[in-house]
Amino acid sequence: MPHVSLGNDAPGILSLFEYRPETAKPLCDLAEVLLRGPSTLTRGERELIASYVSTLNDCDFCASSHSAFAAAQLPEGMALVDQVRADPATAPVSPKLRALLRIAAAVQRSGKDVRAVHVAAARDAGATELEIHDTVLIAAAFCLFNRYVDGLATTVPEDRAGYAAMAELIVSNGYVASAVPAAAG
Amino acid sequence: MPHVSLGNDAPGILSLFEYRPETAKPLCDLAEVLLRGPSTLTRGERELIASYVSTLNDCDFCASSHSAFAAAQLPEGMALVDQVRADPATAPVSPKLRALLRIAAAVQRSGKDVRAVHVAAARDAGATELEIHDTVLIAAAFCLFNRYVDGLATTVPEDRAGYAAMAELIVSNGYVASAVPAAAG
Repeated sequence: MPHVSLGNDAPGILSLFEYRPETAKPLCDLAEVLLRGPSTLTRGERELIASYVSTLNDCDFCASSHSAFAAAQLPEGMALVDQVRADPATAPVSPKLRALLRIAAAVQRSGKDVRAVHVAAARDAGATELEIHDTVLIAAAFCLFNRYVDGLATTVPEDRAGYAAMAELIVSNGYVASAVPAAAG
Repeated sequence: MPHVSLGNDAPGILSLFEYRPETAKPLCDLAEVLLRGPSTLTRGERELIASYVSTLNDCDFCASSHSAFAAAQLPEGMALVDQVRADPATAPVSPKLRALLRIAAAVQRSGKDVRAVHVAAARDAGATELEIHDTVLIAAAFCLFNRYVDGLATTVPEDRAGYAAMAELIVSNGYVASAVPAAAG
């Protein structure tokens, strides 16, 4: 049961968006820019970073939903997502994405854990300055989303099929149209 | 030196806002709603939560700046901010604010560390559902901001007077007008 009375039965972060539309708007705008806006990282790659950080933070709702969003937008589907969540060092991803996932893992622990050597490795593997910046911000953003969802003890759906349905909505319509109550109304 | 080439010499998060205005906008919108929007928590109290979480995350730039913003908006000024940062359990704050700071400290560690007993204590001390919600989200948001600032190794000004000058701007004009390049231009 959620820690505060949210007045709705929506799952996970959707219940918080419905409860507080004033904060839902900037949070969804941020997700839209970072995970779906113009970028040289694919949408699938960015959702993979989100799924991996949520896994490290042990946030079931965010890990399940962003894994579904990643799988829906990666040619390799859920098999690759599962491999990355289990161990990015051995998962069959590009050297660039592996180096970016290492930066994301450092951010998850603490901003200060990101060292020049991590950044140099990503750059050597072909990452641009903006890709490194966006990886840090995606990882930091999921340290917010994961704490928001679990810190208020929101509901986690038992039914795994719900995440695939959410993925269809997000892939087609994006975060703002799918998740902000005012925009979706 | 920052980990990526930001192309400007602004301090801390301001250098990141100038580098990437597309993400600066939702981040400043979020700060504006949470820290300055309509609320039964004063602006000073909300900045105090931000300063305390930034202290726990050992983020010098955010702790220094939000301490200055809190001091500028609290009748007790910096003396109270310093006491809260050192130990909220003994600082002369209301029982409600003390209970909310305890929730914020739990969020800083992990969303799952927020327990029903923390929430019940805040409610018993007079906190509303929305105050508890907003405390969790402020604490979670500073787990983003702190990691963003330190994860990219942004510059921390040596000159402490700079933070008081920033506080004047934020108190007068708010986050969006002060910090988003497009809006400030």
